[in-house]
Amino acid sequence: METVIKNAVTDLEDILQNDQISTNPTILEQHSKDESYHKSSLPDVVVFPKCNKEVSEIVQIAAKHKLHVTPFGLGSCLEGHVIPYEHGITIDFSLMNKVLEIREKDFIVKVQPGVTRKQLNNELKKYGLFFPVDPGANATIGGMTATNASGTMSVRYGIMRDNVRNLEVVLADGSIIHTGNSAAKSSSGLHLNGLFVGSEGTLGCFTEITLKVYGIPEHITAARASFQTINEAVEAVVAIRQAGIPVARMELVDEPSMVQVNQHMDSNYQEVPTLFLEFHGNEAGLKQDVAFTEEIVKDFNCIEIHFETDNAKRNQLWDARHNLAYAYIHAYRGRKLMVTDVCLPISELAGAIHHAREALDTLHLPGGIVGHVGDGNYHALIMVNTEDSEEIQKAEAFNKQIVDYSLSRGGTCTGEHGVGIGKAKYQQQEHGDALNVMKSIKKALDPTGLFNPGKIF
Amino acid sequence: METVIKNAVTDLEDILQNDQISTNPTILEQHSKDESYHKSSLPDVVVFPKCNKEVSEIVQIAAKHKLHVTPFGLGSCLEGHVIPYEHGITIDFSLMNKVLEIREKDFIVKVQPGVTRKQLNNELKKYGLFFPVDPGANATIGGMTATNASGTMSVRYGIMRDNVRNLEVVLADGSIIHTGNSAAKSSSGLHLNGLFVGSEGTLGCFTEITLKVYGIPEHITAARASFQTINEAVEAVVAIRQAGIPVARMELVDEPSMVQVNQHMDSNYQEVPTLFLEFHGNEAGLKQDVAFTEEIVKDFNCIEIHFETDNAKRNQLWDARHNLAYAYIHAYRGRKLMVTDVCLPISELAGAIHHAREALDTLHLPGGIVGHVGDGNYHALIMVNTEDSEEIQKAEAFNKQIVDYSLSRGGTCTGEHGVGIGKAKYQQQEHGDALNVMKSIKKALDPTGLFNPGKIF
Ligand SMILES: Cc1cc2nc3c(=O)[nH]c(=O)nc-3n(C[C@H](O)[C@H](O)[C@H](O)COP(=O)(O)OP(=O)(O)OC[C@H]3O[C@@H](n4cnc5c(N)ncnc54)[C@H](O)[C@@H]3O)c2cc1C
Ligand SMILES: Cc1cc2nc3c(=O)[nH]c(=O)nc-3n(C[C@H](O)[C@H](O)[C@H](O)COP(=O)(O)OP(=O)(O)OC[C@H]3O[C@@H](n4cnc5c(N)ncnc54)[C@H](O)[C@@H]3O)c2cc1C
Repeated sequence: METVIKNAVTDLEDILQNDQISTNPTILEQHSKDESYHKSSLPDVVVFPKCNKEVSEIVQIAAKHKLHVTPFGLGSCLEGHVIPYEHGITIDFSLMNKVLEIREKDFIVKVQPGVTRKQLNNELKKYGLFFPVDPGANATIGGMTATNASGTMSVRYGIMRDNVRNLEVVLADGSIIHTGNSAAKSSSGLHLNGLFVGSEGTLGCFTEITLKVYGIPEHITAARASFQTINEAVEAVVAIRQAGIPVARMELVDEPSMVQVNQHMDSNYQEVPTLFLEFHGNEAGLKQDVAFTEEIVKDFNCIEIHFETDNAKRNQLWDARHNLAYAYIHAYRGRKLMVTDVCLPISELAGAIHHAREALDTLHLPGGIVGHVGDGNYHALIMVNTEDSEEIQKAEAFNKQIVDYSLSRGGTCTGEHGVGIGKAKYQQQEHGDALNVMKSIKKALDPTGLFNPGKIF
Repeated sequence: METVIKNAVTDLEDILQNDQISTNPTILEQHSKDESYHKSSLPDVVVFPKCNKEVSEIVQIAAKHKLHVTPFGLGSCLEGHVIPYEHGITIDFSLMNKVLEIREKDFIVKVQPGVTRKQLNNELKKYGLFFPVDPGANATIGGMTATNASGTMSVRYGIMRDNVRNLEVVLADGSIIHTGNSAAKSSSGLHLNGLFVGSEGTLGCFTEITLKVYGIPEHITAARASFQTINEAVEAVVAIRQAGIPVARMELVDEPSMVQVNQHMDSNYQEVPTLFLEFHGNEAGLKQDVAFTEEIVKDFNCIEIHFETDNAKRNQLWDARHNLAYAYIHAYRGRKLMVTDVCLPISELAGAIHHAREALDTLHLPGGIVGHVGDGNYHALIMVNTEDSEEIQKAEAFNKQIVDYSLSRGGTCTGEHGVGIGKAKYQQQEHGDALNVMKSIKKALDPTGLFNPGKIF
């Protein structure tokens, strides 16, 4: 072990218990990668703090020894965000996993960053509440905040940034700030909440997160609508949005992806382009929404629409959708996941998906198209052989094509996964001179570049 | 005229037409004040640019001559935001008042900053769309963006920050950036949209604003519910929120304020604590919401609830609410408006309003309590004699009491009006060390302090 690391570990031992510090190869390896094709790189040491004070001290020790700091939630990110290419100290938040306060009257909850979304929802259920942001992985709230994650219900309930009320953050100098408050709105000072949400561990470590939560809807109906063509499915999405129906979920799964779902879930859904939908509301309103939707999908030659109100069956349907990326991962062991994540104005969605479909067909790699289409966000998933540099190049060219298409039509290169290292190359193209502003903010808050170097910028 | 001003005007004459530059005393006076009790101060010169290029050149001329720049919308702000205490150049955006693009399929619209909210809604109506953020004044979209304004519908449709998709901004060095895109969501780069919304002219000038808009709801029902006590009215608000009824508007007007409404509008509403409500939705769902609400208000001894579905009558009802501050202003000519603006977690609202009511009673000044109570945001309006320094002191002590109460209960000093100069003294108390972060961002983006000095910080 290098002397600098040894010295840092000695300092860490002064403030942490032994089982909170690890240089064990297996632990280092677990913190060297994410769920994607990006190549791995080991941290020097992994620490497991239990409170904000410990995080602050770890950050100060890292600064003293000029080691970089990488925050780590579950490692389920898809653009290499947690991979410490410059090594240093990885802070794993798994021991900071308490739901600290549920204020049911105020529809807010305060959690530590290591709480996972399923854990949170299990707690909230007891109060008739739920938290709607649901990435496919059982991610941590800290990680979801840092990537500005979204999910199947964001079309109705918003993304992480819409649902974070307050953050406690440990900054590069070890100071601890809060970025918001517990009120529903504020015009006081510059809006730091929004800035830190989506900052991908580059500005500080979150040690407490206050979230907006929601009452479990009185009535819920899910639906699975099968179409003849992906284009008709997408056109139906656009029409439902335009009709102003307040759908709560609206997901597209294409034909090859439905095959994966059936294999992975042992289900026998029709293997055609499918929309997964959900409606929340009071009984009467929901009935009217469902009837209207049924009418609209018929206009787009829907083969069959199947409704589900039973809770267990509804959950099964959404598990199918949530497990899709894992279905591909398990089906193609040895290959790794590359997933595009553009988001466009909804009027551009049909064209974009058509373009992606054609490009995907010429790739001849296993993959499919799925997405949170109600928001104009879709993913082309492809399984790549990371040993085959030519294949990687082809896949990256495909990725670039998708991004170029989106950026030239008012979209973004990443709707929810974030930049990490995978989308860093598109930042100049997407943001132009605004990238300088982002860099000057990074510099102002983290002058030595302590946090998560090489990500975003 | 000082030489530096003369030289600056000469430079401005090179790039603007004569009628776009003014040092006329009446024009300077109009740009020396806002709608509140804050004391006025004249700019040296007022300019009326027509495009982003002109704004950029004005900013560069100001920088060259070391003159400050204050952006100006309608001047309807309430905390002295537009008052140029350090003089310099005021940029009035009234000539940049075009609705540039309405993308009905995407539910987005692009406007110049001088467009007013009523002008925008008149345009949108033709497409079956509306923009929901409605401060009482007919403010400009630029001003509303800069204060992060909200209004009666924010309880359902969100505040400015929730509804701004993209900004074109002229920075202190004259460069022009865009802060977002036209997609529904993005995790690309640091979130500059949220940072610039609510920046009160201290970080740059907005020259184009892309907003999210909404389809006019299929059915709308307004209601006016009269209560015996303000406490029961507030408790009813909390109960309706907790029941999960998706009210679109939820406003409280207290007894003295109902008196002002009747005088100003020549109406004859019952002069008791009143809730103004509105419901949006499909026919069946709305009926169920309305019935449920009726049940709830009865539990709080509602004297009478009156529903209104006729469009003209509904507008009349909301005009009454919107004109409230003007009602006070007109009734007490010679006095000026001071208005508190705290926002608290909803569970703290009844206590806060009770506390404010008692404090107001001991003040013996004309005033009342109104507010966007569905969000936990209320205003104590008081009419003060700005010539009477003792009265001003008393009123400011009252204001501080209200703010202290809110901050000690997880609230904010300003829910929607912004900081300006009036709430600058509470920034340290509210934000603690986070204020340093805000200051370092200000410094990074505007190193010479060109824009709107003395505001927020
Ligand atoms: C099968 C699958 C499906 C997915 N579906 C979705 C989806 O639908 N929507 C979506 O948005 N994403 C999705 N993702 C991506 C991933 O789940 C999200 O990016 C998630 O937000 C990452 O959370 P995590 O806890 O795994 O964080 P990590 O991957 O560990 O970290 C992510 C980032 O957060 C930072 N971070 C973590 N904790 C903190 C902290 N306490 N303070 C500061 N920074 C911190 C890290 O440094 C890193 O930059 C999916 C991933 C998989 C594998
Ligand atoms: C009767 C009355 C009722 C009100 N009710 C509400 C309410 O319900 N909710 C609410 O939120 N507010 C309310 N207000 C306050 C006021 O209307 C809002 O603050 C509004 O957003 C100000 O808009 P404006 O166009 O008048 O901007 P101004 O007052 O001219 O400016 C406000 C701020 O915006 C900056 N600014 C203006 N244009 C630009 C630009 N293009 N680029 C950068 N910065 C710019 C200015 O420098 C200043 O800091 C009310 C005011 C009155 C008088």
